[in-house]
Parts: sequence; C-alpha cells; structure tokens
Amino acid sequence: MENSFNNKLKNICNRKNSRLCIGLDIDPEKLPKTSDKSLQGLESFAKDVIDATIDFCPVYKPNMAFYERFGSQGYALVERLVDHIAGRSITIADAKRGDIGNTTKQYAKAVFNTIGFDAITVAPYMGRDSIIPFIEDETKGAFVLCLTSNKSAEDLQYKTSNGTTIYEDVANLVLELNENDNLGLVVGATKTEQMQSLREQTANLSWLIPGIGAQGGSLEESISIGNQNGVGIINVSRGILYAGDGSLNAIVESAQNYTKQIREVL
Amino acid sequence: MENSFNNKLKNICNRKNSRLCIGLDIDPEKLPKTSDKSLQGLESFAKDVIDATIDFCPVYKPNMAFYERFGSQGYALVERLVDHIAGRSITIADAKRGDIGNTTKQYAKAVFNTIGFDAITVAPYMGRDSIIPFIEDETKGAFVLCLTSNKSAEDLQYKTSNGTTIYEDVANLVLELNENDNLGLVVGATKTEQMQSLREQTANLSWLIPGIGAQGGSLEESISIGNQNGVGIINVSRGILYAGDGSLNAIVESAQNYTKQIREVL
Repeated sequence: MENSFNNKLKNICNRKNSRLCIGLDIDPEKLPKTSDKSLQGLESFAKDVIDATIDFCPVYKPNMAFYERFGSQGYALVERLVDHIAGRSITIADAKRGDIGNTTKQYAKAVFNTIGFDAITVAPYMGRDSIIPFIEDETKGAFVLCLTSNKSAEDLQYKTSNGTTIYEDVANLVLELNENDNLGLVVGATKTEQMQSLREQTANLSWLIPGIGAQGGSLEESISIGNQNGVGIINVSRGILYAGDGSLNAIVESAQNYTKQIREVL
Repeated sequence: MENSFNNKLKNICNRKNSRLCIGLDIDPEKLPKTSDKSLQGLESFAKDVIDATIDFCPVYKPNMAFYERFGSQGYALVERLVDHIAGRSITIADAKRGDIGNTTKQYAKAVFNTIGFDAITVAPYMGRDSIIPFIEDETKGAFVLCLTSNKSAEDLQYKTSNGTTIYEDVANLVLELNENDNLGLVVGATKTEQMQSLREQTANLSWLIPGIGAQGGSLEESISIGNQNGVGIINVSRGILYAGDGSLNAIVESAQNYTKQIREVL
C-alpha cells in the first residue's frame, strides 16, 4: 500500500530521521508579554515556528480547540496554516471528532477536503460509525483515542469486560478496520506500564503519543516501545511553543533538543 | 438553582408546551433541486425554518459537522444562526467535543463565549476531564453521550464491567458531576429496551433524545419515559428539514405535527 497514510507517515519520518510531532496549541495567554496577541500576531508566530522547524520536523498537529476559541476567524487561521505547510510535513487535525455515520462523513469532508489535513484524531465512544467515514480514502489517516494521557482516562478506558479493557477493545476494533493501512491509535506517554503489551497487540498501526513534557510522560520509552512494529510519533506542544524565554530561538532549540533525543533512541 | 441550565431548559419547554428540538443539519444535497445551494441560500433557508417554528419550538441544535464542511465560512454561518435565535429558544451545539482539561476549556470558550451557545454535546471517552470545563458556569449545559442511537453504539457502550454497562458507568459519572444542575445525557430513541431503567437511574438529568424519524426510534416512548423525572427533549433533524416537497410549508407542517404528537403524550 504505497500511497496509504501509514506508509506516507513512515516515509516522511524516515526521510527527516525523526518522530517528532509539534502540537500547534497556540495560546496567547502563554506567549511572552511583549508578543503580538492579535490573530495576525498568532498567525505570524505559528508560521515562524513552522518555517524554523519544518526541515527536521515530520508532523504538525494543530489542536482545533485553540483555534475554534476565536470562532470562524480562528477556523480560517487553521486553514491558512495547513496551506502554509503545503505538504512539506504531515498534518493532523487534533479534533477528536466522532458521531453517527452521516455526520462523521461531513467531518471527513471538513477536515480532509475543505481544510486539507492528512489525518485526524477520532473519539471512539459511538463505535465504528465514528471511524469508517474517515478511512475510506487510503491516503488520509485517523488516530483513534485508545489509552489517553490524562488522569481521568481511568474513568472508562480501564474498565474490564470479558477479560479485556475498553482500551484494548478499541485497539482490537481499530486493528479490524485497518484494511487500508491508514489507522492509528492515540496512546499517552504517561501509560508506560501498559504500552509494551499494547504495542505487541497493535502491529502496523501508527501511534500518536502525547503526554511528553507538561504531562510528564517518558520520551525514551515512548519512542522505543512506540516504534517497535509500526511508526510511533511523539507529540510535544507546550514544551516547544512556550520553551525558555519564548523567543523563536528558544523554540527552535527545544525542538532540536527533542529531535536529538528521539534520534538517540531510534 | 433558578439559573441553572436544566432549569432554564425546563422553563422554556413548559412555556412553549413542547419538548421538540429541531436539529439544524443543513445539507444542500438533501434540499429540493430548485433551492439556492450557496451558503447565502443555506443561511436564508435555516433562518426561515427558525423564524417559522420558534414560537412553538423550545430548542435548536445545529450539528457542527454540517457547517464545518464549508470551513470557516460555515463556522461563521453557525455564529450568525445562534445570533439570529438570540435567546428566543435554547441552542445546543451538536459538537461531541471531548479532550484533556486544558483543551476542553478552550472548546468551552469557543462554544459558549465565542459563538454563544447555551449547551453542547460531549464525548466521554477521556473521562471527567472532558466534561468538567463545560459545566463550571451553571447557566451553560452539557449533554454527555451515554447510550447513542446508532447501530455501532454496541461496539463499546454495551460492554459490561463489574455488573454495569459502560453507558451506565457514564450515567453514574454524569450524575456524580451534576452539582450545578446543568448536565444531561444523550440517549437514543432507538434504545427503548434500556430507556426505562436508565431513566430511573438518572433523575434530574436532562435527556437529549435523537434517533426519531430517519433512524426509526419511537416518539411516544421517548417522550413518556424521557420526561419521567427530568426534561427529555426529542431531536428531529431530517424528518423536519427535508419533509414533504421541501417547501417551508411542508417543514412547518412537519414540525407542528411532531409538536402535536409530543403534546398528546405529555
């Protein structure tokens, strides 16, 4: 499946010799006091970060919430950022959409056709109806929430039914649906205890691994386990965008530092 | 809790003597051939539907997917529709958002502050972190996906852990969090078998009940069970928007017909 999303992701990760995903969670409240906090200022900031890192960063993941906060103007900003990346790296809409089939189909149009993202994060509570419309085009990918990095992941994901946890059930469902080699899982970097067996269970699925940095996950284990039998990309948002004194130099230095650590483990 | 969302919802439903929620899933492909399918045309259509039904319809629910399909322009259209309703009825963003706490907080700003919705639908896979930021303001509400109307709801929601199903676990979690009297559940009208015991379990939570019409759920049981010990509103989307010959007359007639049926059961 040469044109499949998972293959495209693997190729660009190998070419740039990295597994870094920069999470573009643009938050004016976290920027240095002297920054231009207008939408235009935020756009320049995001584009500067992209341009200064795109030679070595294979994946960018704008978090839709941080743009929707500004309404339609923020939504338009995401559209321009994806246009700006222009296929130089993989783009993932961190949108966690999920609905009945006819609605999911509209979200697929929104994210893949209208904005032009390569992939999306998906919430599985409503079952396969929430996933299938996102994976009909093999060149587009979906990362389904499986074992998330946050504390209250325990509320549902750890429940055990017939000997398997809910997050394992999700993993099995996603494996079953991966006929077009374009599915992946979201697995939190904070869940190192469960990671190894989950990785063995989910050969060939890509992993998107958040929870490094602000949330305290382990980079080394995430990279080494996450890449055992499929691509595992490491998302860093706050740890890069708001690094050091908040200058572009500090941001690039942080992104380079993460890249160096990733390359050492690979 | 006079100003709580659930109380506001109850009051407007009682004042209009109905439990109807019109789902504004605007789809140009389903409109009559002669309709103006431009965004401007869709806006006129939606506003005409609202103006012709708002005297007797207490709740409107735009489905975000059908607007995001048109990108930022579609997002702007939702903003104008909520402005147009202008507090005359309750507005629910059918968005099914859900994320870690700091991201959910941004979605709450987007939906409640930027657009101005009264409530949102929420996906619970990531646990309480996905819910809490939406319910800090008692005047704003959240309907959490519990037992959904679609076929593949079974993939996860029916799994049983320690004697309770996942959807019952969600119901218990939502009950526990309902300190501000502003939480509700999404319960599909197609699930009549499970509805009665779930209603007994979830006193005081509002219910949003989709699945009538195109999906085949029972209006009578949904209304009678859904309103036993809390407000249960019935969503109809396709069954109203694309009724009969697609004329405004046919739409209003369908909405009146649903209202009549609801009043008969109440």
